[in-house]
Amino acid sequence: MIEKPSLDSRFTKVRRLPEKARTDRTTLNIILDSGLVAHVGATDGSQPIVIPVAFARLDDNLVIHGSAASRLFKLLRDGAAAAVTVTLEDGIVLARSLFESSMNYRCAMVFGVFTMLKGTDELDALEAITEKLMPGRWNDARQPTATELKATTTLAMPIQNWSVKISEGDPEDSPKDLASPESMKIWAGVIPLLRIYGNALADPFVPTDVSTPKYVTDHIERQNE
Amino acid sequence: MIEKPSLDSRFTKVRRLPEKARTDRTTLNIILDSGLVAHVGATDGSQPIVIPVAFARLDDNLVIHGSAASRLFKLLRDGAAAAVTVTLEDGIVLARSLFESSMNYRCAMVFGVFTMLKGTDELDALEAITEKLMPGRWNDARQPTATELKATTTLAMPIQNWSVKISEGDPEDSPKDLASPESMKIWAGVIPLLRIYGNALADPFVPTDVSTPKYVTDHIERQNE
Repeated sequence: MIEKPSLDSRFTKVRRLPEKARTDRTTLNIILDSGLVAHVGATDGSQPIVIPVAFARLDDNLVIHGSAASRLFKLLRDGAAAAVTVTLEDGIVLARSLFESSMNYRCAMVFGVFTMLKGTDELDALEAITEKLMPGRWNDARQPTATELKATTTLAMPIQNWSVKISEGDPEDSPKDLASPESMKIWAGVIPLLRIYGNALADPFVPTDVSTPKYVTDHIERQNE
Repeated sequence: MIEKPSLDSRFTKVRRLPEKARTDRTTLNIILDSGLVAHVGATDGSQPIVIPVAFARLDDNLVIHGSAASRLFKLLRDGAAAAVTVTLEDGIVLARSLFESSMNYRCAMVFGVFTMLKGTDELDALEAITEKLMPGRWNDARQPTATELKATTTLAMPIQNWSVKISEGDPEDSPKDLASPESMKIWAGVIPLLRIYGNALADPFVPTDVSTPKYVTDHIERQNE
């Protein structure tokens, strides 16, 4: 069920180009699960700030983690209103007119307030963030110590107030341009943008008998399919 | 010359992990010129919003364009304080400890207020945004009409108050982990992330005698070098 109870619909209703809006939760989840970085916005005094953070979707929450000493994380921990935007850049759209030229993208925006996670909730969120970046890593790497957890602020925001906007497919030149012999001499189309994972590069301290884990090479292969 | 006159240094001084901060203008320009999308933050009432926009650097200004009917562009046009963040995702960093695991990234943040551009200033900005996405396109595509310009809001922000943060290279495991036989059994390293341009796909209306322009295929080739 999609709930958008508390926030003014001014923020969650797509007004501009409403044909680009999506309201199904599956589309939202795909974008949130594909994006590696979220841009988190908050207002510090009267100054907006926008900071990239690693994040994950954990059931019906967005979870993020950062330094307990970070200005943004202190603001958010203290209940600042926040906006979380995840954008996938899918292509460059070259229309015949400059006016219709643009980008293809998928963008999810979630609005709300974060709350701090502790104990097993915090560990679950950290596991979700780790496993999103590299499935299989959580059980392989060295677990956080109490001191490390103390230096980390882990936050969750319920996914309740959100909007999704998608621009996809071919350029949308006007009927006038499509009927104009002059305009039709101009090439038009899309250049797809792809995110590719390179080969895993071991750091200089990896012993010769420690090879790249299969979960790493498998994930790279899956991402590049 | 780097000027940071008007804005509180709270926003432009990198406090967390200051070794990741960069203060040279060349590094800033490279990030701004490489990123295709900026995440622009503003505060609407008390609600932060963060929206992805195409942008360009034009001399010492950031320029963006959007619909004259857009909520964000109305806010910005009216002088709302703004934050513009451009992030390049460079890699996934798998440290031996989960605590040191993270991403490699380059992030530029510019703070300030936008002003509206008109006349040749607006056209110069639109040309910069077009040429950034596809060099050579401005002179080839159909130029904007007066009606199209009226539907477009073009804005500029001086690049004066900014900060850059870069995370790069190998994982930074603690000396303790690097001396621990248990931790040293864990593979550690980086998985590079690359942005690749696919082949140009013509839309269904391109006549058979109109081929992909050389400036398009050249740009794709250059981007994938």
